[in-house]
Amino acid sequence: MLFFSIEGLGQNTDSLIIRKIYTEALLSPIAYHNLAFLCNNIGGRLCGSPQADQVVQWTRHLLEGMKPDTVFLQPVTVEHWERGAKETARVTTTAAGGHNLDVCALGSSIGTGMAGLKAEVVEVRNFSELKLLGKDKVEGKIVFFNRAADPAPIYTFEAYGGAVDQRAYGAMQAAHFGAVAVIVRSATLAHDDFPHTGIQHYADSVKPVPAVAVSTNGADSLSRWLKADSRLKLFIRTTCIQHSPALSHNVIAEIRGSEYPNEIITFGGHLDSWDIGQGAHDDGTGVVQSIEVLRLFKSLGLRPKHTIRLVLFMDEEYAQRGGKAYGDEAKRRSGLGLEKHIAAIETDRGGFTPSGFSIDASAIQLKKIQEWKTLLLPYGLWSIEKGGSGVDIQGLKPLGVPLIALVTDSQRYFDYQHAASDTFDKVNFRELQLGSAAMAALIWLIDEKW
Amino acid sequence: MLFFSIEGLGQNTDSLIIRKIYTEALLSPIAYHNLAFLCNNIGGRLCGSPQADQVVQWTRHLLEGMKPDTVFLQPVTVEHWERGAKETARVTTTAAGGHNLDVCALGSSIGTGMAGLKAEVVEVRNFSELKLLGKDKVEGKIVFFNRAADPAPIYTFEAYGGAVDQRAYGAMQAAHFGAVAVIVRSATLAHDDFPHTGIQHYADSVKPVPAVAVSTNGADSLSRWLKADSRLKLFIRTTCIQHSPALSHNVIAEIRGSEYPNEIITFGGHLDSWDIGQGAHDDGTGVVQSIEVLRLFKSLGLRPKHTIRLVLFMDEEYAQRGGKAYGDEAKRRSGLGLEKHIAAIETDRGGFTPSGFSIDASAIQLKKIQEWKTLLLPYGLWSIEKGGSGVDIQGLKPLGVPLIALVTDSQRYFDYQHAASDTFDKVNFRELQLGSAAMAALIWLIDEKW
Repeated sequence: MLFFSIEGLGQNTDSLIIRKIYTEALLSPIAYHNLAFLCNNIGGRLCGSPQADQVVQWTRHLLEGMKPDTVFLQPVTVEHWERGAKETARVTTTAAGGHNLDVCALGSSIGTGMAGLKAEVVEVRNFSELKLLGKDKVEGKIVFFNRAADPAPIYTFEAYGGAVDQRAYGAMQAAHFGAVAVIVRSATLAHDDFPHTGIQHYADSVKPVPAVAVSTNGADSLSRWLKADSRLKLFIRTTCIQHSPALSHNVIAEIRGSEYPNEIITFGGHLDSWDIGQGAHDDGTGVVQSIEVLRLFKSLGLRPKHTIRLVLFMDEEYAQRGGKAYGDEAKRRSGLGLEKHIAAIETDRGGFTPSGFSIDASAIQLKKIQEWKTLLLPYGLWSIEKGGSGVDIQGLKPLGVPLIALVTDSQRYFDYQHAASDTFDKVNFRELQLGSAAMAALIWLIDEKW
Repeated sequence: MLFFSIEGLGQNTDSLIIRKIYTEALLSPIAYHNLAFLCNNIGGRLCGSPQADQVVQWTRHLLEGMKPDTVFLQPVTVEHWERGAKETARVTTTAAGGHNLDVCALGSSIGTGMAGLKAEVVEVRNFSELKLLGKDKVEGKIVFFNRAADPAPIYTFEAYGGAVDQRAYGAMQAAHFGAVAVIVRSATLAHDDFPHTGIQHYADSVKPVPAVAVSTNGADSLSRWLKADSRLKLFIRTTCIQHSPALSHNVIAEIRGSEYPNEIITFGGHLDSWDIGQGAHDDGTGVVQSIEVLRLFKSLGLRPKHTIRLVLFMDEEYAQRGGKAYGDEAKRRSGLGLEKHIAAIETDRGGFTPSGFSIDASAIQLKKIQEWKTLLLPYGLWSIEKGGSGVDIQGLKPLGVPLIALVTDSQRYFDYQHAASDTFDKVNFRELQLGSAAMAALIWLIDEKW
């Protein structure tokens, strides 16, 4: 009976704290104002760029002003690729004359140079079709990868996952058969004129060729024009530059644990973004939500027993160097017995209404977190299931740390991801703050109950 | 064992059908194109207006083209209030000069006439404060109701419910103390310049006075100016007109049941909207989703055992005459033994990602629907709970019919509701279609399993 009462009291206190976290989050505009500054005053911030430096300095100062127990920078060496001038793509058909296409270079692509390149186009839907065509039909041409993302899955990351191979490995595959460039349908379910960039990879064994993304509307048009005129010519001009690697940083801040200062609950998002938008949902929202978690703990006077550590990762988009650097250091410190991570939480799925958490952990760890369901359900956090987490915290996996992702309503995410349309106005204040509060509530529960 | 197998097979078939419904909905742009036409070519459509006539004719023709078993109009007599010219509101302070305010007349309000009216302003937060001020301090003045909606509830309809009394009954209450007009803070959680209209009610016992809504930014400004200058003057001009009642219609279409044609599953949204926006989320999305349900049944060749009846209600916003007319006729036909409703489903909470159904039904009926949870959960329909349904289907309550509302993510709904910002571009294709599919899936399950 006594045990039952104490348990009941515990649940009750937890539920009061969580309610306070949500109320404070929904009443305070600070995170939203931070996001406005990040998007409108810094903007797109690819690693190595001056804007990436700016976001490091800005978040460091912002965090120092909040007076956590410590704020520091972790050095990270990053690649520095630059898009160059606005890209040009133009189709010339014998019948219908010329048409411009909305394209953008893919990350890490070489440029065509100012002269550009012009060639015939061969359309494929996947690497098998490319292979079937073979060198005979591909050599000297531009390969057009035009497999649409599948609209049927309810969770849109599934659709993205099924289409993104064209972007990531299209140039490498096409170059193998002698293609001179690739143009890739954007991995989005939206039908519009925005090309979506993202990283692509070359293989050491084949010559790198220029790679661009085309908007979904543009891809549909190009496919139609090709049907009418298989000999049409596509002109592409990109002026990308690969600079020397640059020194950058993860930004880290902590509230030290009152009882277990060497046991760490880490959480964060990534500072960098693609260059062509404002990086609002990817991952400006994750950055300001993570900072908001610290603010919520401070302003509500929640003193954690374990150290809660905010990590704002540099370079999620290009080569994940920030996540690797953090993971390596965590392994080193763990090996020396200096600290131990008890959980890691990443927010990098857009600032939309959260639906729960995806958990990469042992069955026992998962079950423990699922026991808190009744505390989280009143806030719409209905899905607490085994699944993938996020790329920036993967470095902690060898340490057996439960890796957790904040899961949000995914319907609009790929409308904006990596495109010029990923801007501040696409973020709703309440949706953003429900995510901040969900993160803070989970961190509170882990701290109290782990 | 045999029984178990058949049950298993049944679940499996249901889950395949539901998957087909969702795939068809997510692949077909028809509902979205319908919404574009409704918003961009018809636009705001208050009952009694020419646009309300247009939407009746347009939906009738659209439905006839889909060749269900029957399409017909049910006559409904509606009030016909007209806003008149764009409203003016201007504050004159002794210190800071003049300021314009973003206002709009509330539905059913009398106008000030072209001359307008000018008076001092007294600010209150609720009817108790108004009463405390009394006739002495209110007579001859404009009462400014400025209680903000509470941002703390997670489900925003709760916030709205806690603030909307000012809009609905403010003029009646203020007039009782001799006020000459009221200006009411918009019942939204957004901070912007859009005034939100909506119905307000006069009492027979007091003289009607003009009532306007002011944007939340405008309300904050007015409150600030009042603090600096309690004697400031507010000028308001509205030119609303109350016309004679008009004949309008509910639009009804059916697929007749193959086994129980006299047992009806009804579903729908409302045709009318407020005049100042496009009525996109309120309730254009409900209209096109309901039409889409019929299309999904037709295109997938789903032949229901019971009659499924689409009802597009006229006049949800003003006096709910369409819902009343439908309910009265249902009662009459039920009394005559001509037909029996087995369920009614309303979609009028915006075209956002659906989270489940709110069910006003007996415990037994509720439990039956909750048994389908595992079939609906893969589609994000996690909340199937007892709760309110919708106003248009209330007329069926005396018949003991389970009344069901499609519940959607509520965070953005009141940003747009009843405002000029409720436009087509605020609707996401996939979110809209997840709602269409959720409705169709539930109707399929009710038809199969009731």
